[in-house]
Amino acid sequence: MTVNRAVAYKSPGEVQVIDTDYPTFELKDGPGVNPANVGRKVPHGVILRTITTNICGSDQHMVRGRTTAPKDLVLGHEITGEVVEVGPDVEFITVGDIVSVPFNISCGRCRNCKERKTGICLNVNPDRPGSAYGYVDMGGWVGGQSQFVLVPYADWNLLKFPDRDQALEKIMDLTMLSDIFPTGFHGAVTSGVGVGSTVYVAGAGPVGLAAAVSAQLLGAAVVIVGDMNPERLAQARSFGCETIDLTKGDPQDQIEQILGVPEVDSGIDAVGFEARGHGKDVGTEAPATVLNSLMTVTAAGGGLGIPGLYVTGDPGAKDAASQEGSLSLRLGLGWAKSLSFATGQCPVMKYNRQLMMAILHDKVQIAKAVNAQAITLEDAPRGYAEFDAGAATKFVLNPNGYITG
Amino acid sequence: MTVNRAVAYKSPGEVQVIDTDYPTFELKDGPGVNPANVGRKVPHGVILRTITTNICGSDQHMVRGRTTAPKDLVLGHEITGEVVEVGPDVEFITVGDIVSVPFNISCGRCRNCKERKTGICLNVNPDRPGSAYGYVDMGGWVGGQSQFVLVPYADWNLLKFPDRDQALEKIMDLTMLSDIFPTGFHGAVTSGVGVGSTVYVAGAGPVGLAAAVSAQLLGAAVVIVGDMNPERLAQARSFGCETIDLTKGDPQDQIEQILGVPEVDSGIDAVGFEARGHGKDVGTEAPATVLNSLMTVTAAGGGLGIPGLYVTGDPGAKDAASQEGSLSLRLGLGWAKSLSFATGQCPVMKYNRQLMMAILHDKVQIAKAVNAQAITLEDAPRGYAEFDAGAATKFVLNPNGYITG
Amino acid sequence: MTVNRAVAYKSPGEVQVIDTDYPTFELKDGPGVNPANVGRKVPHGVILRTITTNICGSDQHMVRGRTTAPKDLVLGHEITGEVVEVGPDVEFITVGDIVSVPFNISCGRCRNCKERKTGICLNVNPDRPGSAYGYVDMGGWVGGQSQFVLVPYADWNLLKFPDRDQALEKIMDLTMLSDIFPTGFHGAVTSGVGVGSTVYVAGAGPVGLAAAVSAQLLGAAVVIVGDMNPERLAQARSFGCETIDLTKGDPQDQIEQILGVPEVDSGIDAVGFEARGHGKDVGTEAPATVLNSLMTVTAAGGGLGIPGLYVTGDPGAKDAASQEGSLSLRLGLGWAKSLSFATGQCPVMKYNRQLMMAILHDKVQIAKAVNAQAITLEDAPRGYAEFDAGAATKFVLNPNGYITG
Amino acid sequence: MTVNRAVAYKSPGEVQVIDTDYPTFELKDGPGVNPANVGRKVPHGVILRTITTNICGSDQHMVRGRTTAPKDLVLGHEITGEVVEVGPDVEFITVGDIVSVPFNISCGRCRNCKERKTGICLNVNPDRPGSAYGYVDMGGWVGGQSQFVLVPYADWNLLKFPDRDQALEKIMDLTMLSDIFPTGFHGAVTSGVGVGSTVYVAGAGPVGLAAAVSAQLLGAAVVIVGDMNPERLAQARSFGCETIDLTKGDPQDQIEQILGVPEVDSGIDAVGFEARGHGKDVGTEAPATVLNSLMTVTAAGGGLGIPGLYVTGDPGAKDAASQEGSLSLRLGLGWAKSLSFATGQCPVMKYNRQLMMAILHDKVQIAKAVNAQAITLEDAPRGYAEFDAGAATKFVLNPNGYITG
Repeated sequence: MTVNRAVAYKSPGEVQVIDTDYPTFELKDGPGVNPANVGRKVPHGVILRTITTNICGSDQHMVRGRTTAPKDLVLGHEITGEVVEVGPDVEFITVGDIVSVPFNISCGRCRNCKERKTGICLNVNPDRPGSAYGYVDMGGWVGGQSQFVLVPYADWNLLKFPDRDQALEKIMDLTMLSDIFPTGFHGAVTSGVGVGSTVYVAGAGPVGLAAAVSAQLLGAAVVIVGDMNPERLAQARSFGCETIDLTKGDPQDQIEQILGVPEVDSGIDAVGFEARGHGKDVGTEAPATVLNSLMTVTAAGGGLGIPGLYVTGDPGAKDAASQEGSLSLRLGLGWAKSLSFATGQCPVMKYNRQLMMAILHDKVQIAKAVNAQAITLEDAPRGYAEFDAGAATKFVLNPNGYITG
Repeated sequence: MTVNRAVAYKSPGEVQVIDTDYPTFELKDGPGVNPANVGRKVPHGVILRTITTNICGSDQHMVRGRTTAPKDLVLGHEITGEVVEVGPDVEFITVGDIVSVPFNISCGRCRNCKERKTGICLNVNPDRPGSAYGYVDMGGWVGGQSQFVLVPYADWNLLKFPDRDQALEKIMDLTMLSDIFPTGFHGAVTSGVGVGSTVYVAGAGPVGLAAAVSAQLLGAAVVIVGDMNPERLAQARSFGCETIDLTKGDPQDQIEQILGVPEVDSGIDAVGFEARGHGKDVGTEAPATVLNSLMTVTAAGGGLGIPGLYVTGDPGAKDAASQEGSLSLRLGLGWAKSLSFATGQCPVMKYNRQLMMAILHDKVQIAKAVNAQAITLEDAPRGYAEFDAGAATKFVLNPNGYITG
Repeated sequence: MTVNRAVAYKSPGEVQVIDTDYPTFELKDGPGVNPANVGRKVPHGVILRTITTNICGSDQHMVRGRTTAPKDLVLGHEITGEVVEVGPDVEFITVGDIVSVPFNISCGRCRNCKERKTGICLNVNPDRPGSAYGYVDMGGWVGGQSQFVLVPYADWNLLKFPDRDQALEKIMDLTMLSDIFPTGFHGAVTSGVGVGSTVYVAGAGPVGLAAAVSAQLLGAAVVIVGDMNPERLAQARSFGCETIDLTKGDPQDQIEQILGVPEVDSGIDAVGFEARGHGKDVGTEAPATVLNSLMTVTAAGGGLGIPGLYVTGDPGAKDAASQEGSLSLRLGLGWAKSLSFATGQCPVMKYNRQLMMAILHDKVQIAKAVNAQAITLEDAPRGYAEFDAGAATKFVLNPNGYITG
Repeated sequence: MTVNRAVAYKSPGEVQVIDTDYPTFELKDGPGVNPANVGRKVPHGVILRTITTNICGSDQHMVRGRTTAPKDLVLGHEITGEVVEVGPDVEFITVGDIVSVPFNISCGRCRNCKERKTGICLNVNPDRPGSAYGYVDMGGWVGGQSQFVLVPYADWNLLKFPDRDQALEKIMDLTMLSDIFPTGFHGAVTSGVGVGSTVYVAGAGPVGLAAAVSAQLLGAAVVIVGDMNPERLAQARSFGCETIDLTKGDPQDQIEQILGVPEVDSGIDAVGFEARGHGKDVGTEAPATVLNSLMTVTAAGGGLGIPGLYVTGDPGAKDAASQEGSLSLRLGLGWAKSLSFATGQCPVMKYNRQLMMAILHDKVQIAKAVNAQAITLEDAPRGYAEFDAGAATKFVLNPNGYITG
């Protein structure tokens, strides 16, 4: 039987690479699999040999023990692979195709999928709309930080790259299509960024950097990125962003120094619920601080795109309100400024084809922007640890040796 | 000299009808006039003899003493009138025109006005973007609950009715174009209501009823209105809405009884910051309750339109957070459901012409829906009191006897 | 073996009800089946027992001999039915479901379907994007004017009605969801109709009437319908439209009499390429006349929605240009007025769920508006003849006796 | 009295620089002034000392004698200037401001202006909606290829540059904001160009090049430009476009060689009614050829943006249909492909601020892309002649010596 090595969550702060089952066209019982999904047949699925699979900031929420993720949950929702088996109902995907997998699993058959809202598919997660691979409370679809992975509804979900050689040549860019590039792009689009916009991106992690790149691709005039991590800010500057060091205070003054006015047209929250205070409150967890800050610096009539994750339950939060996902937001300020707010998982399929085109035709260098670094699957624990420590790096796992450079 | 009778705020709970100055083409000093606006020339303005001017729920915030409104502030931002004088720069409006005045004052010359964002005009209020007649902290433009009123930037602001006789015949409907009909419509539009939608409107005051009518006009399949006031709920049922009595508990169960599912496509907050708890918390001020409830009952992927007013400062609030306009919102829940949120003043000019057409061609009966009742200007204090006590009535002042029926 | 009676095209002017094969989960060879589609497996399909199937104006193009439709082609693309068999890949549709079939067949797996452009699916018609049941040059999917019909990609294509009894009770309305109601609605939407609009609909056949109803549902202030057939105009007046008798001249003067201005905000072409001249040119085929007339009567900045069918080849046309589908259009006029033009098959799935909701909640009476009349399947030839002769009737075939009223 | 030198149309093929009146705040009688506009007061206007004013392809239609432009009509609608006098009603523009003038004159007070449709303003041209400076049948507003020019409704129309020195430094780019940059951008936007799009631009004159640059700014993956002029094609290649030499045949095959498929997502017509045939029909006037070609090469579901000018009357056309602006269009093909078509003058104010931001922050080099060359006002006749002969140059007149480089 084929061995399938995979990255699994073990305990707060600990991941391990373990042996796990080679996938079949059925969702079998296992850590975190929703009982209603156990035994679910997947004739519409394909099995991928993983080419790349990235470590994501949202994985860290689980690894830090901020969720109810069970021991041995196989992680990983950022997957690019080669098709090695196709289920009997698959019609347009064939063995040998090189494909990108949207992190949000969707059926292509429910009302929401038909309306392009694939982040809230009604048929894949018995608990609530929306799902993802290798994620707690998302139905139990097995994660892809592994050598082989099952992708359901393959004709619908998969984005096929037009040329194998070209795909492998640009794989470090294309691997970002499964999540962070569309997620950052969604943040930019829903915040209203367009040609000539001024934009403030809160957070210079991979999603923040992807949002910044996306804003540039959308024609923004000035993209400003704020963070407290000097390496990540340097990374943002490396591709033409202005930056704000939040350890030196609130962003408003620094925005004024850059733009001549203390406001931007659009604000993007690429941090989410584990936000920490800035200025004199550096380091204290302050879940509402990013959104309140964005309301201050976004001009009246502007939009806030919120790709940063906020959760319904956070057992590790410091107070009761935060534990149920409640934030103390200055909505009065937002209302006075006629701001709009867009939340939720990025519906990857709405954007990934067009972003693939931009990559294939050299209009964007997303891998360079997020400082993508390939490491082996066995090295994943180190990747998790360094990323958690603030490395200005997007770690790309290489489980089957496709990346040889 | 012409006498100009007007409704003025006196003290918490008290308004009086006073004598005040007949307007000229200049913004003179007076209660609540921003110093930077004192002496401002208004050659682009017209003077109106008021035909109708309505009492608005947002006036009540001032009258209840929940703001810093000064004594003798002339109230009134819902104005319909006949042009009696035109300033030298006015080109397309003439004496005798019957016109509707958008409550938000705008210049027609700034970036925001050029982008149709007239609720946040940059040139009329020295304090912040956006203004309104007779409102605290809005620059000091004199209110229109009076016999005569000055309207600046008249060519831009005014909506001229095509026929005088027709206008006077339908005046009780047309008077709603200055504020609540567009405001309710904006709430419906920004919540995503379209043909076939299911909608929940929180609040059956005039704005809530206007939002419900608007949702019907936009083709909604089912419009559900929730409130704790039985007369207002009866009013909502009078034009085909389903209703929910919030004294009997949270709306979710009752929505399920009506629709078969516990969720709606779109939610509208027509209450704002003075919300009170429902179910077992009836009567306690609970500023976040409406928005948190809407997040619960709006389906994943839905939109929340928030025409209800939230303020940056509320000295009368019960705790420090509310006093600065902060609310404890379940954003984690909203994020998990990919909800969007639209806030702010309705930009009336974006909608008033089309809504006028719907009224003139008998496609909508807004006056009947909100139970409009004409009273004399001198009777305004009674109107304020009854409205504050929960009358299911929209009071329309008739300062110059145009309404004779 | 089950008998399957069906309406087939025989020769110009002639249709017959014939015996044909009961469908299986395979597209077999037959009249008009594209060789590349012969033998295509359809495990994702269902077999329906037809409840209703309507005669459409676009069927008439074939029956009149204006196309290359082959003898014995089974007609019919407006289908509502009960599921009697499901293919092995079908997951969410079950036997006994009552469903509406969008006339445009789509795969739910190609780029266009993923972008909601189901009228131009890339995988169902080997000749070009887009397909339909029982239609010449559309791939060869067998028509549904029959007792049983195969529907491919059933999970994707079918709209399931929530309740069987309710569905059968409203079946004469719901049957319009397969084509003409969404098609008319698409015409209205793409012409820019919204609340308060004035609209001119050219053509009072079923699609024109459906467009008029749709414009009302979208909140139009005034809907004007033009035709040369007095019965059809009477039908339009029956639900509140203004009408124009085109035998009496161009529409512009009559529009001015109705509206006071000679222009409307939006124009809808519900006629297509078999248009005839009006006024003094009554009766002569004049394929460009509708579009040129709409450019004249639509105000600057307006939109033209063009649900009426224009074809790439029309062997029966009177001149070489028309034979290749070229029209002499006054584009100079359109350009000077900044008009926009939207063409093509309606992507039914974009609209049918919301229109179903409007029907189920009694917000619209489409059957009454188009004067739907049920006849037996065996009576179809009479229906074709009467419809072609200008009957102000939408004929609904009742092949299995579901309609008993 | 101040001398005002200006470029005037004299006869077909001939322009001259003449002495003309210094402007006042009134529209006086003169060549081409509509009688209803004679004597019109312009207290809302400003007088500009022209910094730059460009020769436009649409001027050439007049100069070639293809219109009814009268002798001595002062030409020029692409104007950038310094404010030297302000009318009494002007409030937010002051002497010394450096401003861009949208070529379409608009009042900022009519329905269309309020809806951002400034290309079809209802109050500036007595003949029809829409106007422009120095253009036949546009109301008679005096052209700006002169030392001084009157701009009406200055608060509304003018785009003020934030910094004088910066503006003069980037003047060769900023001068394109008055017309061709927004016009090309409008073509790209209305054709549906977005991130990742493939685009075909018909015509490599200045508007075509501006459309190509705009498509890049909007994130297009591949921009292909077709023309028959090798210098203009070289110009397109200079900033990264693919090119097609139309003297070698229809564009479809060449598109396939570039993209691997014979279709693009979006098509832009930057040629207009004076189109000539390509391939074997090179050089023959063929007004429908561009649009028919675009329908062929644009993929199903795509959009056509049509900034190229089509006219209602063309006395010089070769046949009766063309003389009234009728074209023989393959609408049947367009319909089968569900294409949409957007026509008309670009509403410059919808785009110029954001494009200014892109220029000021170095996101786009429009001057370089269109090969802008400054020449003196007196040299205008040479500029017209060379441009008409096909020079791959955008001529910028420098009437007051501001450009010194």
